[in-house]
Amino acid sequence: MNSTIQELQQRYANLTRTYNQGIIVNPLQTGGRLTDAAKAAMQQFGDGYSVCDHCKGRLEGISNPPIDTFVEKDLPQFIGADAVKLTHGAREGKYLVFHAITKPGDVVVVDRNRHYSSDAAIQRAGLNVVKVDNDGTLERKMNVEDYIPLIKQHRPKLLFITYPDGSVGNLPDVKRLGDIAQEYEIPLVVNAAYAIGRMPISLQDIGADFVIGSGHKSMASMGPVGVLGMKEKWRDILTRPVEGHKGKEIECLGCTVRGTPLITLMASFPEVVERTGRWDEEVAKARWFSGELESLGLEQMGEKPHAHDLMMFQTDVFYQISGKHPQKRAFLYEALKENGIFGVKHGLTKSMKISTYGTSREDLEKVVATFKDLVNRYG
Amino acid sequence: MNSTIQELQQRYANLTRTYNQGIIVNPLQTGGRLTDAAKAAMQQFGDGYSVCDHCKGRLEGISNPPIDTFVEKDLPQFIGADAVKLTHGAREGKYLVFHAITKPGDVVVVDRNRHYSSDAAIQRAGLNVVKVDNDGTLERKMNVEDYIPLIKQHRPKLLFITYPDGSVGNLPDVKRLGDIAQEYEIPLVVNAAYAIGRMPISLQDIGADFVIGSGHKSMASMGPVGVLGMKEKWRDILTRPVEGHKGKEIECLGCTVRGTPLITLMASFPEVVERTGRWDEEVAKARWFSGELESLGLEQMGEKPHAHDLMMFQTDVFYQISGKHPQKRAFLYEALKENGIFGVKHGLTKSMKISTYGTSREDLEKVVATFKDLVNRYG
Repeated sequence: MNSTIQELQQRYANLTRTYNQGIIVNPLQTGGRLTDAAKAAMQQFGDGYSVCDHCKGRLEGISNPPIDTFVEKDLPQFIGADAVKLTHGAREGKYLVFHAITKPGDVVVVDRNRHYSSDAAIQRAGLNVVKVDNDGTLERKMNVEDYIPLIKQHRPKLLFITYPDGSVGNLPDVKRLGDIAQEYEIPLVVNAAYAIGRMPISLQDIGADFVIGSGHKSMASMGPVGVLGMKEKWRDILTRPVEGHKGKEIECLGCTVRGTPLITLMASFPEVVERTGRWDEEVAKARWFSGELESLGLEQMGEKPHAHDLMMFQTDVFYQISGKHPQKRAFLYEALKENGIFGVKHGLTKSMKISTYGTSREDLEKVVATFKDLVNRYG
Repeated sequence: MNSTIQELQQRYANLTRTYNQGIIVNPLQTGGRLTDAAKAAMQQFGDGYSVCDHCKGRLEGISNPPIDTFVEKDLPQFIGADAVKLTHGAREGKYLVFHAITKPGDVVVVDRNRHYSSDAAIQRAGLNVVKVDNDGTLERKMNVEDYIPLIKQHRPKLLFITYPDGSVGNLPDVKRLGDIAQEYEIPLVVNAAYAIGRMPISLQDIGADFVIGSGHKSMASMGPVGVLGMKEKWRDILTRPVEGHKGKEIECLGCTVRGTPLITLMASFPEVVERTGRWDEEVAKARWFSGELESLGLEQMGEKPHAHDLMMFQTDVFYQISGKHPQKRAFLYEALKENGIFGVKHGLTKSMKISTYGTSREDLEKVVATFKDLVNRYG
């Protein structure tokens, strides 16, 4: 039966978010919280196509607001790229590269720690995948030297690596992989969705051909928006024009993020640049947090000492508790929620992912105290 | 030279929109203004990935906020489709269909009045284009019977039409084209970016296979967000899963609009449904406006009497004025701006596009009076 207008109003006209208050530890969300500047800009540019007031035919050519300077000067400098394209996010950036520079049936060598959306983009582009495994331990470490035999065997058209991965937050030796890529003359794509906007990273330093970032994941932006940095040699291929429509680009379908997410990306940008300069503090905080949780009997997976705010912990102690707790597998989620802590997956008690990014030491101490209390009470 | 943090702050930290006040007549923008409900929801869900608080792995399966009901029930009902996918916008919806159901080299028959982004999507998908011309007059009328000989000659894999087009706002006989498509058993794609959210439209009534809408263009949403409606028979093809990742879809790259634009689309939806029920009033207003401008010596292009708010006018009288006016080709833009009227392209005086959608009769009378004054003063 069709919904009435009254039913639609009840359902949609007062959408509220549960987690607007509280301490957020979901790695997806800690780097994407809007700055005050972004919140203010969002008010100005909320309406559809409001960024296009002064458009002369090309999104990235708009000078009011200064999208042109942002894309042509400040973003490339920030990530050490020769050129940058705006995208709808990291996965769309990956697909854009795959589609633009490969043909269906081509081989791409990828890391075992990649995100599922990399597979989605690879399969959408019709590529064949060869996987470089991690070390199979709790550390899940990638050794980039392992790309070499697979390069020799499969003659890939592309190398792909995730830096850091979104599971355990490992930072593989991308500079060495950049050297390998250049030695074998194969383009290297670095998915840096959890790096760009959190920590210093430079395409030029790595020696990569492409580096991919996410606004909503790590650049204090609403979604969907992302950035794609590249070497000069790829610019013409990635920006090839639509036949019959000068100034419009095929791979971007003319324009990409024609809206508010781009405005939040720009408005947050000064703070994002500034905060990446304080990355050492974030790493120190993550290490301290990891130590606190390990002292409760949890075990941090991934590289140790850890070098990123995204961490996964084995939580056998909570799994034991869930067996006897009346709320069963939901107990951890509910207990955290009661203490105003959000972002640990509902129903998972064997392991959990946590990010300490941008959260104060004080708030993280509350998180630690809550875990300690649970272990003491039920463990 | 690298920008300093201070320079970045000056450039990006206080982004303001010029056209927040005033009367907006840009067809791109009149249907995309946020409702109050959308503005309120935007405050709640501004942060990156905030729609994902309760995600269990699939964007369109999230029940808080009720994205699942929106996508599975209310959107399909609204556009008479069996299934709906969320997209980043109309062009991304077109590419999604083209990529999913054709192969490079396939032929698609398209209308002469299509938007450039349709060409971008077609070329990105590697399709060959056969064009059905319009009548070549100022009316630019499409006769859908003209698809038949091209179908017979070229055996296309797809038929494509724009309803209405974004140049002169014509509404071709899509129902007849739906019959033709079914008779020749060729899937029909209707780009309804200027229809869905403004006027009643039903995929089922048309007999189309796909119907494509834009949130930021016509559904009172921020960009980028769109909707793609389809017949049941296409659902499995368009939602084929990523190998190795159950519940994730290849063509969407897992999830599409993971952010705030979707929230504004949902929050505005009750009003959007309601306003399409008042489409007759919008058409009457457009006709009145067209008559007023024609009485000043401007000539409305496209179908007459006009059946859509998007209109193009030949403006020879303004072109004559621009030749002698000190501001030359900028005079019209500047004169309108002085009167708080925004959205007529800077520098164009031979023709202009105007939309009367959602603008009050009172405000439109101010627009008419401004034009009249210019004609009287300089004409």
